[in-house]
Amino acid sequence: MLEAQIHATNFDFESYLKERRKLVEDRLADYLVEQEPARLWQSMAYSVLSGGKRLRAMLTLAAAEAVHTSIVSNARGATMGATAALNEDGSEDPLQIALPCACAIEMVHAMSLVHDDLPCLDNDDLRRGKPTNHKVYGEAIALLAGDGLLMLANEILIEHTSKSVAPANLLAVALELSKATGPSGMVGGQVKDMEFTGAEEDGFDIATVESIHAGKTGALIRFALWSGGKLMNGNAEQLASLHRFGEILGLAFQITDDLLDVTGDAQTLGKTPGKDEATKKATWVRAIGIEGAKNKLSEMEAEGSALLERSMLDNKDAPVLKALLKYAIHRKK
Amino acid sequence: MLEAQIHATNFDFESYLKERRKLVEDRLADYLVEQEPARLWQSMAYSVLSGGKRLRAMLTLAAAEAVHTSIVSNARGATMGATAALNEDGSEDPLQIALPCACAIEMVHAMSLVHDDLPCLDNDDLRRGKPTNHKVYGEAIALLAGDGLLMLANEILIEHTSKSVAPANLLAVALELSKATGPSGMVGGQVKDMEFTGAEEDGFDIATVESIHAGKTGALIRFALWSGGKLMNGNAEQLASLHRFGEILGLAFQITDDLLDVTGDAQTLGKTPGKDEATKKATWVRAIGIEGAKNKLSEMEAEGSALLERSMLDNKDAPVLKALLKYAIHRKK
Repeated sequence: MLEAQIHATNFDFESYLKERRKLVEDRLADYLVEQEPARLWQSMAYSVLSGGKRLRAMLTLAAAEAVHTSIVSNARGATMGATAALNEDGSEDPLQIALPCACAIEMVHAMSLVHDDLPCLDNDDLRRGKPTNHKVYGEAIALLAGDGLLMLANEILIEHTSKSVAPANLLAVALELSKATGPSGMVGGQVKDMEFTGAEEDGFDIATVESIHAGKTGALIRFALWSGGKLMNGNAEQLASLHRFGEILGLAFQITDDLLDVTGDAQTLGKTPGKDEATKKATWVRAIGIEGAKNKLSEMEAEGSALLERSMLDNKDAPVLKALLKYAIHRKK
Repeated sequence: MLEAQIHATNFDFESYLKERRKLVEDRLADYLVEQEPARLWQSMAYSVLSGGKRLRAMLTLAAAEAVHTSIVSNARGATMGATAALNEDGSEDPLQIALPCACAIEMVHAMSLVHDDLPCLDNDDLRRGKPTNHKVYGEAIALLAGDGLLMLANEILIEHTSKSVAPANLLAVALELSKATGPSGMVGGQVKDMEFTGAEEDGFDIATVESIHAGKTGALIRFALWSGGKLMNGNAEQLASLHRFGEILGLAFQITDDLLDVTGDAQTLGKTPGKDEATKKATWVRAIGIEGAKNKLSEMEAEGSALLERSMLDNKDAPVLKALLKYAIHRKK
């Protein structure tokens, strides 16, 4: 069904997802080869390599390809300099250039789940059907594995991108990763989420919900798209389009999450639905109801699709970003 | 008494410490001005601005000045290019160039204490005579404040240094900060420390103790010295000397800490001594006894002083690095 929805072209999205997931997971496994202290590395690998959609990594790769394609087709017209983002060693593979950044983003995402699951926050025993990190390694190691992943993400990004991207561009990407993850981004959103958890429906409004998720999930999704473009030396217009598409996608992703918690079934989800209601989270569904949330999703889908067409950032033969938007919205888990 | 010990010259070390502490703390306060979400920023500021020796920040500033002085005096001889580290806008103040990095290091250090103090690690109620972060803000906020500080440190370093330092040098510094802090550095050392806590004296050896502290406290101290030199575009020889001096100083600092836990008094320390013995930490004193630890300290002091003289990294009129080494060893808290 999902497949049918996105088959506007002959583009095989299911195969694409599978192939990209493997690409990302193989590289993540390389970066997380066991070192001393072994338990720390095992704990980090446990959470990073435990599956997941790899949506964020795919966004970075897709954005890098989109900007690369546009640069290459412009370059065919003439102008030098537009290819400045290409590898010094002559290689031009946007996937190889953006893959370390994509993996860094997955590490940051994984660490946020490890810390969120700790007893002092969400106190979750299961994640994707498996025991959470602290249930396997204990709270102390889970805490430190999260800290370690945060810095390892920075390290991987800089160390493995510095040969293929101009220093000033890479610095800009490293700076934005810190901002997206830190107190003004993901961590700040997490705190706001906590502060409003337990509030009655009349204790928060749409602006609150938007602000929570713009940080908690939105910041990293926006960064994922923007960074892919920036690493390929995208121009200001392309980067602004990717940023806005990131906002739309982040919203769509979160609203769908909130809806699935009400309408999804436990087996498909791999977790118990109804938790948002039980813990009184500040969600879209609680703010504007199921119908309101569905309408908002349709708006996001329409705006996102229009933006992609206008900005010409999607590949005509393989409309990956459009497919990822539909995927974020129509997924069942 | 401390003053008498370091007065080889007319250099007034006590005034120096006071002045530098103020410089660092004023800048830290600027970086931690309250934003939304307020409780998160209050919690971060609480731990970063709660005093402390600011030793790491001072090392960065002193190393930057040492390399700057050497570059300036070489430049008087002739050769262009040696002043490449100087500001693009013409300003040449090594303190202003290194201050954001010095503050970033203090933030990382503070975050490590916040997470160490959490119930699942050391479960400490007091730090520097004040309630620990989680005692004031709760465990969840303390956890997230630590995460936030880690990313804010990266952000401050890059954002506030990018105008005064060449992008490639700044990238190298940002990369080393991640390595010094992450699973191969501070976080890894913390895990090793945990693993050996509770071991009997015959359950670990000197190599274990060295390896724990090379990560847990050493990595950040080495980075503090090296980064000051790198930001000023120091040459390979200078950077190697700073790195080795960092190793010596890190060891000296840790051995003194271990000794103070046995020989210090509660009031001066601001914490209860004897905790290492009670919790069976893998310390220098437990590995080689009080006399052994004191002898090792004397060795470190001699080697460090000799290194400073040989490398000519210390200022003749204001031997700051030598004074900081003596300070690390002869302090009473």
